[in-house]
Amino acid sequence: MKVRVFVSLKEGVLDPQGKAVGHALEALHFKGVKDVRISRVVDLELDTSSVEEAKKEGEAMAHALLANEVIEDFNVEVLS
Amino acid sequence: MKVRVFVSLKEGVLDPQGKAVGHALEALHFKGVKDVRISRVVDLELDTSSVEEAKKEGEAMAHALLANEVIEDFNVEVLS
Repeated sequence: MKVRVFVSLKEGVLDPQGKAVGHALEALHFKGVKDVRISRVVDLELDTSSVEEAKKEGEAMAHALLANEVIEDFNVEVLS
Repeated sequence: MKVRVFVSLKEGVLDPQGKAVGHALEALHFKGVKDVRISRVVDLELDTSSVEEAKKEGEAMAHALLANEVIEDFNVEVLS
């Protein structure tokens, strides 16, 4: 099963990496960039054939390692 | 307009960050993790109201800065 864990910063949390990208885009003469936020996607190939189990496993991994829940939200999706 | 640029490693390119996450998951006793690939998502808020223009702008930004096309693919999606 392929599981996708989408990890993004919570709303209101400053995104310095996004800010840096915004400044770099300005420096490259891209106009009108109002905001940039950067998230990450972790694609896992798991050795299970149950959609439910894959989703549960993905959520457990996100809680344990993939997301820092103090500042980040995550969303788990089973792709196939 | 909100534009999402999804940047992922090309197939066949080694993902050391993904490998490290895979080993860390094993160390945390998660069994059956066969593969881990990590991608990033850049969400841009652009000062334009044209979907076409937003998509073109996002693609230009990906070519210029957001993706390293030697090892990465990207996909641009206009969200709203």
